[in-house]
Amino acid sequence: MADELEQHREEIIKLNEQILELLTRRGEVAKKIGEVKRKQGIIVYDPKREKEMLNTLIDQNKGPFSDSVIKQLFKEIFKASTDLQKGDHEKHLYVSRKLKPEDTVVKFNNGGAIGDGKKSFIFGPCSVESQEQVDKVAENLASKGEKFIRGGAFKPRTSPYDFQGLGEEGLKILKKTKDKYDLNIVSEIVNPADFEMADKYVDVFQIGARNMHNFELLKEAGRTRKPILLKRGLSATIEEFIKAAEYIASEGNNNIILCERGIRTYENATRNTLDISAVPILKQGTHLPVMVDVTHSTGRKDIMLPTAKAALAVGADGVMAEVHPDPSVALSDSGQQMDLEEFDEFYNSLSPLSKKYNTNEL
Amino acid sequence: MADELEQHREEIIKLNEQILELLTRRGEVAKKIGEVKRKQGIIVYDPKREKEMLNTLIDQNKGPFSDSVIKQLFKEIFKASTDLQKGDHEKHLYVSRKLKPEDTVVKFNNGGAIGDGKKSFIFGPCSVESQEQVDKVAENLASKGEKFIRGGAFKPRTSPYDFQGLGEEGLKILKKTKDKYDLNIVSEIVNPADFEMADKYVDVFQIGARNMHNFELLKEAGRTRKPILLKRGLSATIEEFIKAAEYIASEGNNNIILCERGIRTYENATRNTLDISAVPILKQGTHLPVMVDVTHSTGRKDIMLPTAKAALAVGADGVMAEVHPDPSVALSDSGQQMDLEEFDEFYNSLSPLSKKYNTNEL
Amino acid sequence: MADELEQHREEIIKLNEQILELLTRRGEVAKKIGEVKRKQGIIVYDPKREKEMLNTLIDQNKGPFSDSVIKQLFKEIFKASTDLQKGDHEKHLYVSRKLKPEDTVVKFNNGGAIGDGKKSFIFGPCSVESQEQVDKVAENLASKGEKFIRGGAFKPRTSPYDFQGLGEEGLKILKKTKDKYDLNIVSEIVNPADFEMADKYVDVFQIGARNMHNFELLKEAGRTRKPILLKRGLSATIEEFIKAAEYIASEGNNNIILCERGIRTYENATRNTLDISAVPILKQGTHLPVMVDVTHSTGRKDIMLPTAKAALAVGADGVMAEVHPDPSVALSDSGQQMDLEEFDEFYNSLSPLSKKYNTNEL
Amino acid sequence: MADELEQHREEIIKLNEQILELLTRRGEVAKKIGEVKRKQGIIVYDPKREKEMLNTLIDQNKGPFSDSVIKQLFKEIFKASTDLQKGDHEKHLYVSRKLKPEDTVVKFNNGGAIGDGKKSFIFGPCSVESQEQVDKVAENLASKGEKFIRGGAFKPRTSPYDFQGLGEEGLKILKKTKDKYDLNIVSEIVNPADFEMADKYVDVFQIGARNMHNFELLKEAGRTRKPILLKRGLSATIEEFIKAAEYIASEGNNNIILCERGIRTYENATRNTLDISAVPILKQGTHLPVMVDVTHSTGRKDIMLPTAKAALAVGADGVMAEVHPDPSVALSDSGQQMDLEEFDEFYNSLSPLSKKYNTNEL
Repeated sequence: MADELEQHREEIIKLNEQILELLTRRGEVAKKIGEVKRKQGIIVYDPKREKEMLNTLIDQNKGPFSDSVIKQLFKEIFKASTDLQKGDHEKHLYVSRKLKPEDTVVKFNNGGAIGDGKKSFIFGPCSVESQEQVDKVAENLASKGEKFIRGGAFKPRTSPYDFQGLGEEGLKILKKTKDKYDLNIVSEIVNPADFEMADKYVDVFQIGARNMHNFELLKEAGRTRKPILLKRGLSATIEEFIKAAEYIASEGNNNIILCERGIRTYENATRNTLDISAVPILKQGTHLPVMVDVTHSTGRKDIMLPTAKAALAVGADGVMAEVHPDPSVALSDSGQQMDLEEFDEFYNSLSPLSKKYNTNEL
Repeated sequence: MADELEQHREEIIKLNEQILELLTRRGEVAKKIGEVKRKQGIIVYDPKREKEMLNTLIDQNKGPFSDSVIKQLFKEIFKASTDLQKGDHEKHLYVSRKLKPEDTVVKFNNGGAIGDGKKSFIFGPCSVESQEQVDKVAENLASKGEKFIRGGAFKPRTSPYDFQGLGEEGLKILKKTKDKYDLNIVSEIVNPADFEMADKYVDVFQIGARNMHNFELLKEAGRTRKPILLKRGLSATIEEFIKAAEYIASEGNNNIILCERGIRTYENATRNTLDISAVPILKQGTHLPVMVDVTHSTGRKDIMLPTAKAALAVGADGVMAEVHPDPSVALSDSGQQMDLEEFDEFYNSLSPLSKKYNTNEL
Repeated sequence: MADELEQHREEIIKLNEQILELLTRRGEVAKKIGEVKRKQGIIVYDPKREKEMLNTLIDQNKGPFSDSVIKQLFKEIFKASTDLQKGDHEKHLYVSRKLKPEDTVVKFNNGGAIGDGKKSFIFGPCSVESQEQVDKVAENLASKGEKFIRGGAFKPRTSPYDFQGLGEEGLKILKKTKDKYDLNIVSEIVNPADFEMADKYVDVFQIGARNMHNFELLKEAGRTRKPILLKRGLSATIEEFIKAAEYIASEGNNNIILCERGIRTYENATRNTLDISAVPILKQGTHLPVMVDVTHSTGRKDIMLPTAKAALAVGADGVMAEVHPDPSVALSDSGQQMDLEEFDEFYNSLSPLSKKYNTNEL
Repeated sequence: MADELEQHREEIIKLNEQILELLTRRGEVAKKIGEVKRKQGIIVYDPKREKEMLNTLIDQNKGPFSDSVIKQLFKEIFKASTDLQKGDHEKHLYVSRKLKPEDTVVKFNNGGAIGDGKKSFIFGPCSVESQEQVDKVAENLASKGEKFIRGGAFKPRTSPYDFQGLGEEGLKILKKTKDKYDLNIVSEIVNPADFEMADKYVDVFQIGARNMHNFELLKEAGRTRKPILLKRGLSATIEEFIKAAEYIASEGNNNIILCERGIRTYENATRNTLDISAVPILKQGTHLPVMVDVTHSTGRKDIMLPTAKAALAVGADGVMAEVHPDPSVALSDSGQQMDLEEFDEFYNSLSPLSKKYNTNEL
């Protein structure tokens, strides 16, 4: 009986070979069809024809495999064949590292850069409230040699009665701060119609978590020539996050900085759950810089330093956090912004570590 | 010792009374402050003053309660007092049933209505693909006496390379269908700039799940005079959902239909998790009609009928589902749309039940 | 060029046929191997041999399909072949409706039944606290003609300092109640060692949500001859829930009642999120009765009635809820148990509906 | 009118003072009651009395605060008073850092330690399959100077038909490995009845994620004198995780090592979502060592190294990961275990970093 088993197994091996050969031939014909279609400008995927072919095969199927198994197997074969017909640009996203293996580096006139192998920081208040408030933070940042400041002028808030930001007035404040302290301005845009107006004030357009699925905003962001800081949606998968970036890239703007900012889970010890694993997955799958926002992910000042350290260690290109001269009277997120003293302590602990990464000691 | 305990307990009861008396007096003064402030147009909540008062109390605190307990207790007292200072409109949202106890009924010229105590249905294809396709479904619906048809002309899709809808062309198709079959058109708007253009084609503007947090879109929807069908966000809390509706209402448009369409959870046997409990909570908390979308919540044709029955039973004002003349070649959501035969079966099972609710047999 | 395309398409169709033929022959040989193996008592799945076959095929692959595509396609073919080798009992779970199409009905000596097509109710206090407390509820239930009462004697509590239940003392109380009111006792077991002791007091052993993944407890439950009420785990998938039931069934006990009791999600308006879609999925996939616990899923007395109605409508075999003579002093779950008055109101609304289902009016 | 406002504000400040004074007096009486109760052995919290007091206050309330506000405020006051009556041990958990500020260090005879400020590693195969398999890994670990090896003899598996582990046979294999290579054995126990048997083979009893809510197992673990490695439940909150550890500690065993191993979320790019923020929260809240399992959290070999680095950086006491001599034929988790070559690469990258932490360079 061992002989019988052995004999059947040899048959199986021969059948494997023959199936492989037929698949190879099918693949070659599929490639030729792809070439013809490309010349004619026909879309490669043709669900109607596939349905017909499947129906024919099911008619011919006499077992022992069930119809649903045959359907499943041939669907896989069809899919593999369709993929063969696609060019590189059809197979891979613009943001994919498979298409562009080298890192995207976002560079700025003041010498700032994100994604150049060094660790970058973007700090600043949640909302722009006054010139004095922004300047206080900017002065602190400039004295540390930092190159960026963040501040929201358009604030997407859960309630229509919460402070909605100062709007263009806020952007003007930021611009004055930029002129004084030579910092790049990172600020959120929430309406596709606002990019043009905001262009004269802002260096990096931020797309916030609540708008990651706002595809009209993403497309418009893709039509600007400024860097985009794209935050992961509240409960976006990593795949959806990458596709959201592709919306921007597909319109011609590759200057995209991704930002992991925590996802919504059942755990309420933190404001969101910082998905630290997303960072290496995004770094592997795309050529874009990836930052980690430790304020919105944790919502807890008491663990911002260790999570920022984790972000650097896991391979993020930088860290974002919120700083406010007087958080207790802040018009938004008052509980989770660091005051300047807390920020100095945070910065003084994080910065030496960051330098070790920058000089390849780590 | 029992005496000692008894004696202490009597002291406690007296102290309770005295605290109550002081709270009452504090409440009365707070109300007066509120009146003065209202006259002067000053915002009621004043975080700086509260901070000062808390600091004073903490300085005075000599135990046995810890400073943080005292802080916590007085924060509660302050909050209760601030609430006293608010008028009804400040306390309650426009969409709240506390402000408007009677149900909002959304009425249409063709006799259709949503929220009038009867069960309503909104069926139709995921995307508008052609005049013929929409008309086939419309003919079926009209023959059943239905008053609504849904169909997407602007499709928010995860990938920029997926079919994005026919745009205005799709709306024109829907309008022709409306003129032929006298059905109200429900179609999604994704860009604040598009309401004006869409106004001549569409009867109900839908805001999709991915845009529930797109506050610019919500505000613009509030400025139209057409009914808005607002879908719950992918992972929006019920509270956030209500606040999103309030964005619309606060701009003056109260014709809002809420739609539960499933939330994102770890469970992947269904496309999303239908949160059936949300329906009675929304009905209690707001005066708005609430529908249930059984297509996007379950993503499974095999359980659409029982979940639609559950939706009617739990108190929803109606059910939404997707129907397509040939789902296997549909340009979006091909796996989960019912074909016309499946739809007839679904409808013929659901409709008698619906009639029992309409005639108060259930 | 259209000719060229047509010609290639004909080739494809021929190749499809040939691949189908080879797959068919491969399937037949695989079946024979399965028969030999069965005779010899060899396990069907052989990962080592598959690995070798894949390596051989990869060596032979010269494109155009990539090695990973070839690997993927053949893995599917291997899997389909292995499935062919399995007998029905290997392919389907004991709890699967594919193995046993007819409904499992759990019957009791007092005339009670669960899963017989009629709607059943299991009500009672969260914890057994005293004879008087349980009797009060039992008297109410018996007067309504109900056949079951629930009550916890072993309470799995998050904190070791919370009330852990009266233990065997509690079971004795339940037994006395049973003797007085002729109700079946449903009570939770938390330690594999306790089934024997509890057997003389309890009619239905409950496995709670926190123990759904406690496989030792499940196995021991399977070795008893009493019905098991198995609650879905806090964040168990439907598939895991079915497999947990299979642990019990695989030990020989098919008297299993499944209970959907809500899953853990980000939404905190309810204690858990009642996954109503799980009910029809469980009913389709298994032959077991399915109940819905409206207390633990919602945690809100104000929506228990509508969600109970939804449970009946979606096809559940019955409803569970917690009732306590004086919830405000209950030793566990005091906020969500109905008092007897609330319960009467709930019951009087639900019961007529339930009767309509029982008499096939619904 | 500004005067009027000022005058009211002064009244408010006086009332604040008087309320504070009454609260202080109430607190002092409450403390005395606590002392009397402690002497008499009466439980401090008395829901019946609180209910009566609340009813009295509601009867006396004449506004302007609503009854529900008064109820809420006094409930807070009652709670604060009850807390005053508790001793330190009643207020704080045994595992709390508030009770024991210094770190718990778990020490072993072979010189190994966890929680001593140095980074520790626990590696080894998912399941024990054979002496040869375990020895191969052990030899590798011993040659690196490691002090621990993990391996499962009792495997909690979703399906009853998956490999359930070798049982005691597996533990004997581990013991032989220990004797040869002087490594501490970490192995999971799943049945309360098994601790006694396992005691002679195992150095650290592991409680797996699926059993974190199995309180009977936790209690029994607390009655042993061996260290317990407690994994966080699939969807346990951090608070529940700490309370689960308290179950062990409350039985007298403080030798507990916590292990974050990812939580269940909607994201499926990783097996679970590594909740890196949990580490500093657990380190702050408890005095117990905290490890991170990078295998079960990520389920992806391609990101194990960066997430392990993040774990060290965030302050974890060590890292766990699975290693198998030939993962492709492993009886469980074959896709995510590193082979020895991959492991060497992982280890050689992680170990220098670990040493920098150990020598306080980081």
